[in-house]
Amino acid sequence: MPFWSKESWNASGKHCYVTGGSSGLGLALATTLAARGAHVSIVARGQQRLDDAMKQIEAKRQSPDQIFRSFSADLRGAAGANAALDAITEVHDGRTPDAIFLCAGVATPRFFVESTEQDLASGMDLGYWTEAWTAWAVTKRMVEQGRKGKIVFVASTLGYMSFVGWSSYSPARHAVRGLADTLRSELLLYDIDVHLFCPNTMHTPGYVEENRTKPQITSLIEEGDSPVSPEQAATALLKGVADGHTHISGDMVTELFRAATRGSAPYHNFVYDCILDTAAFIATPIWRSMTDSRVRAHKPEHARYLRERGLQK
Amino acid sequence: MPFWSKESWNASGKHCYVTGGSSGLGLALATTLAARGAHVSIVARGQQRLDDAMKQIEAKRQSPDQIFRSFSADLRGAAGANAALDAITEVHDGRTPDAIFLCAGVATPRFFVESTEQDLASGMDLGYWTEAWTAWAVTKRMVEQGRKGKIVFVASTLGYMSFVGWSSYSPARHAVRGLADTLRSELLLYDIDVHLFCPNTMHTPGYVEENRTKPQITSLIEEGDSPVSPEQAATALLKGVADGHTHISGDMVTELFRAATRGSAPYHNFVYDCILDTAAFIATPIWRSMTDSRVRAHKPEHARYLRERGLQK
Repeated sequence: MPFWSKESWNASGKHCYVTGGSSGLGLALATTLAARGAHVSIVARGQQRLDDAMKQIEAKRQSPDQIFRSFSADLRGAAGANAALDAITEVHDGRTPDAIFLCAGVATPRFFVESTEQDLASGMDLGYWTEAWTAWAVTKRMVEQGRKGKIVFVASTLGYMSFVGWSSYSPARHAVRGLADTLRSELLLYDIDVHLFCPNTMHTPGYVEENRTKPQITSLIEEGDSPVSPEQAATALLKGVADGHTHISGDMVTELFRAATRGSAPYHNFVYDCILDTAAFIATPIWRSMTDSRVRAHKPEHARYLRERGLQK
Repeated sequence: MPFWSKESWNASGKHCYVTGGSSGLGLALATTLAARGAHVSIVARGQQRLDDAMKQIEAKRQSPDQIFRSFSADLRGAAGANAALDAITEVHDGRTPDAIFLCAGVATPRFFVESTEQDLASGMDLGYWTEAWTAWAVTKRMVEQGRKGKIVFVASTLGYMSFVGWSSYSPARHAVRGLADTLRSELLLYDIDVHLFCPNTMHTPGYVEENRTKPQITSLIEEGDSPVSPEQAATALLKGVADGHTHISGDMVTELFRAATRGSAPYHNFVYDCILDTAAFIATPIWRSMTDSRVRAHKPEHARYLRERGLQK
């Protein structure tokens, strides 16, 4: 709820650091930022995909002064997050990037009772720690160097609400939201801005991957969902950042959930959020009631499914 | 938002399994449940505290038929969660408990830039995994045995919102909320009820512990908070469960945040939640604006603090 109007953020000439930058939303962001004149660094796991991504980023170059770098690292641990930052900032005289976009993250929907120990642990690693460790490593450096900057977390509509199938992913995305809300307050101490982007479904390699394990009832509930392109999502993210919004969504359904689960997060605008919240207040119980009915109607089929897999006698 | 009225839940004769049952909220719940005629099992780490707790539970015995058991286990991993359930259910012919109360959890507030890798990882272990693994182990057994039951997660006001100092704890509590909201939907498939209790500050050994590491600015913001006794919190939790509420809070401030961050969670009552939400819609931006000002005003002192510790040049 800005009572004052903020200066619009412009990527040109800034050093933007994008995790998960070799595919999906991260890649779309990286190319968009390159096209807007930013220095772009991308970090991801696979070297081949990083190389391919670098070609696409290079194709968007606006000026010979732009510095593009990539680094292959596993960001699930603090060591990887630190190593990637060290490697990338070397060419920038050790200066911490101006803006960090935390796009690494993978979803693997599955029934809770079918999930292994590894499934659940991995959900938190890929959905939370990949973002948290980089945020931690970056914040420490920014504070040490007395630099201002931006940290943009990426969660999901499932960071605002959840339903059947998302027990390994939604908790991680809620955790990202909790960290973003904490740091929005705490990093006021250093003039570091914190944003949280909650995209809905995107047409990405990750989406293809998640559909492999998605329970049928989960797909059924998501039927009405209309996935956006990563480019559309990247544009929505950057617009939200430019507008100074703390929580940013890329579609109207998530926008309704944002208003319905704002907690202590800042509003975009008092009147706009009031209208959205009122709509959400009426719409969400209807959505939930319909969804609950679908889950209940799925019981006989699910019982058959469990017996086939020996999960129920 | 129940349009129908639910049967009130009664603990008498039920087997209630309480993690973190040797102190704080867990112990208060265990003794209250014993006084209400339940079979009570408690799990926690220290044997001595478990023994002391068992004496307090025994003192509340209503009938010679009540079975009280304790087991010492580290619930931060799946193995501990399974071992504890195996040991406890042995005396109940292997039957999964009727109700699970997930009270294990420790908060260690600290500035983000001062947090070590261990601090952050431990925050998630103690604030999320202690609950998630037991919920996972219990759900698998309930489904295998075709048993209905209740799973009651415990988060915190900080599972709904957050501010400076809570970067290791609030994400974990948000994750608990995400898991509870997922399972509320998913476990409709098995008629297993899921609840989420979000208490505010309680006068517990954990509270004394957390104040040791709490940054000054965090204490300042919490000044107006009036901690409740674990017994009051336990009573509020059980009342919420009996009333069939999915999200349960123990005080009016958290109740406002519950209404303001309901997302897709069920309402207690459409009209009541509408009034609360309206109040929260107006009150939270005022709270946030005041809190943000306090954080900003803390900047010079914090800069001194950082320099003293070598965290800023």
